[in-house]
Amino acid sequence: MPVRYTSPAADALLPVQGISLGPAAGRIKNWQRDDILLVSCAPGTVAAGVFTQNRFCAAPVVVCREHLGYQHRTGASMRALIVNAGNANAGTGQPGLNAARSTCAAVASLLGCAPEEVLPFSTGVIMEPLPIERIAAALPTAHAALRDDAWLAAARAIMTTDTVPKGASRRVVVDGVPVTVTGIAKGSGMIHPDMATMLSFMATDAPIAADVLGAIARDVAGVSFNCATVDGDTSTNDSFVIAATGQLPLTPIRSTSDARARPLREAIEQVAVELAQAIVRDGEGATKFIAIRVDGGRSVDECRRVAFAIAHSPLVKTAFFASDPNLGRIVCAIGNAAASDVDPSTVSFWLDDVLVVDHGGRSPNYREEDGQRVMKQDEIGVRVDLGRRGGASATVWTCDFSHDYVSINADYRS
Amino acid sequence: MPVRYTSPAADALLPVQGISLGPAAGRIKNWQRDDILLVSCAPGTVAAGVFTQNRFCAAPVVVCREHLGYQHRTGASMRALIVNAGNANAGTGQPGLNAARSTCAAVASLLGCAPEEVLPFSTGVIMEPLPIERIAAALPTAHAALRDDAWLAAARAIMTTDTVPKGASRRVVVDGVPVTVTGIAKGSGMIHPDMATMLSFMATDAPIAADVLGAIARDVAGVSFNCATVDGDTSTNDSFVIAATGQLPLTPIRSTSDARARPLREAIEQVAVELAQAIVRDGEGATKFIAIRVDGGRSVDECRRVAFAIAHSPLVKTAFFASDPNLGRIVCAIGNAAASDVDPSTVSFWLDDVLVVDHGGRSPNYREEDGQRVMKQDEIGVRVDLGRRGGASATVWTCDFSHDYVSINADYRS
Repeated sequence: MPVRYTSPAADALLPVQGISLGPAAGRIKNWQRDDILLVSCAPGTVAAGVFTQNRFCAAPVVVCREHLGYQHRTGASMRALIVNAGNANAGTGQPGLNAARSTCAAVASLLGCAPEEVLPFSTGVIMEPLPIERIAAALPTAHAALRDDAWLAAARAIMTTDTVPKGASRRVVVDGVPVTVTGIAKGSGMIHPDMATMLSFMATDAPIAADVLGAIARDVAGVSFNCATVDGDTSTNDSFVIAATGQLPLTPIRSTSDARARPLREAIEQVAVELAQAIVRDGEGATKFIAIRVDGGRSVDECRRVAFAIAHSPLVKTAFFASDPNLGRIVCAIGNAAASDVDPSTVSFWLDDVLVVDHGGRSPNYREEDGQRVMKQDEIGVRVDLGRRGGASATVWTCDFSHDYVSINADYRS
Repeated sequence: MPVRYTSPAADALLPVQGISLGPAAGRIKNWQRDDILLVSCAPGTVAAGVFTQNRFCAAPVVVCREHLGYQHRTGASMRALIVNAGNANAGTGQPGLNAARSTCAAVASLLGCAPEEVLPFSTGVIMEPLPIERIAAALPTAHAALRDDAWLAAARAIMTTDTVPKGASRRVVVDGVPVTVTGIAKGSGMIHPDMATMLSFMATDAPIAADVLGAIARDVAGVSFNCATVDGDTSTNDSFVIAATGQLPLTPIRSTSDARARPLREAIEQVAVELAQAIVRDGEGATKFIAIRVDGGRSVDECRRVAFAIAHSPLVKTAFFASDPNLGRIVCAIGNAAASDVDPSTVSFWLDDVLVVDHGGRSPNYREEDGQRVMKQDEIGVRVDLGRRGGASATVWTCDFSHDYVSINADYRS
């Protein structure tokens, strides 16, 4: 069960003008549920994406990059997304690329657009051939199911080990016009996004130029999905795509310095942060949600390195699972990740409001029962001060490491 | 139970002339066994050490470095080691340094040497005050127990979550004189040594100059302890110290180019590799031992980065635990760690003799049952070829990630 996260109600995910969603059952795996999602976008929709930095990036990621490049070069629209769960189409070589391209071609012929106007996504087991015939067979059902209020069903169709569908919406008023931002995401394991998360698709009906949308997507990924980690493994398939349908009667936003870009960016960021945290709250086997903030670094990178070292330590994660204030493990993780010129005698850290390490040593006021009280919570804040080397800060979110994590991953394919 | 490792017989650990060992029960934790070890070294013994790179290195590591520096500067002997298990004396600030120094002073007054001729070691829980009075109270018992054939009892006294004591011996003939190398080590969790392992002490009765011994220690650590990982957490206390008592009637070895240094170095390396592998075989919750070799890299560092990414991935480790050939997870780990200019279409990998990925894609000859056969073994080899970017190779050793790992670390302090 996710940590303080419940699936949104179907009507809490607001329709975005120009976007309709059609789930279907492709039986990619032996699941009794939808595992294919077709998203149709109105002509004129522009899109931007950020993708995994994994060198073995999946075939759909390669094709997504190609097709987005084509769209940006030629001014073609983003007309559709085709997503399958249960098979990542990664580590599949040239046959995998062919499979991703032929899936796009099948969607294009169904919708009457160019294959380059279709973006493919896959998520699931790595290194298995993609069963394209099953996807093709499910496409007519998905097409017939297209509806603008199907965001929750769409979120459900892209799940793998997720226990709940994840989605969020915001509405902001721009030039007197209510603009909608709605997004969905999936992800629970193999989560340590590097430029993006496992899979997230977000849309707005505002008119935004592709390059502005791209800048917003990169910025937002950096403060949302890229701050989340479950197990430290950056997936081969991480993709975050945002589409702007431009269906609203607004003058297009053509520059990041346009004052109207700001509230829109904030709404997009809020949706992205909510989705990124939902992924961690629904992390494989998670029983706790932990926010780790590192202050006083010389750079954001330095702060992130320390925060992720804490977030990735299996010893720290199992101590959180056990509610055991074995906080020396956090000291150890800081010591491993801190820059070589960090002076340990200036470093302090807190568990929520409890000062544990004060300038390099156990705080004289620290009492085990105070640490115990915080560790028993299902939501915990860790704050590290690197000794005011600089003014940089970073926050990352993670979960604990439980018996269920081992069970889920030992049995994943069975 | 360790993976294909059983504790050596007491008489398999050969005495080293000039070294005697005295274990005792200090009741540092609530254990019904010895947890203090005093090692006495003959006058004239020289020592070298390699220590953790963790910024929060423990107080005994700081004091060890100081005292070894003093010995090398002044020509003073290494006369004793004092080890306690159950408390790491790390993250303890100035009081921790005072505690380590007063422990050395107590040993020095017992043995009639200078405090700087004593090296302190601690291993156990981080950030708890060291109970020096309990160590001091146990010293007379340890002193009375000093024997040259107590290596196995010594190995047992330094254990924490280890399930078996670890030790190894080799004998080589140098100039017609049989030279003995014997070592012990402890470690099971928080294992990803960076310059050394959790705790290892090794001794030889050969006469070797301190700088030659130091060069050998650094070299050997690089191909033994630094190739081992259980959970990716570099401990605050990692220490590997080697002592040469010089008790044998041999002309001292004063240069690394001395032909006699080579067989001695080989014996030391063999002992170190056996101890490092024993630590992994006895890794917390381990059910499998996995050797990961990466070939064809531009540098050893590049190869090690890829090998450790595989070794540290919780997803890979749980797949090994489950004997599930979910080998896409290995592809993903390679993709995360490979240099940005590695071309995935040149990368191949094998599970023992089974070619799984051939030039970036699943090998057409790969059959799931072949992968399954190898994954069921309790000792598994993974070999990655980075596409002959260069001639560098590296091997690291690790274990799987089991339910017992979570149990052991969730309950460690209770």
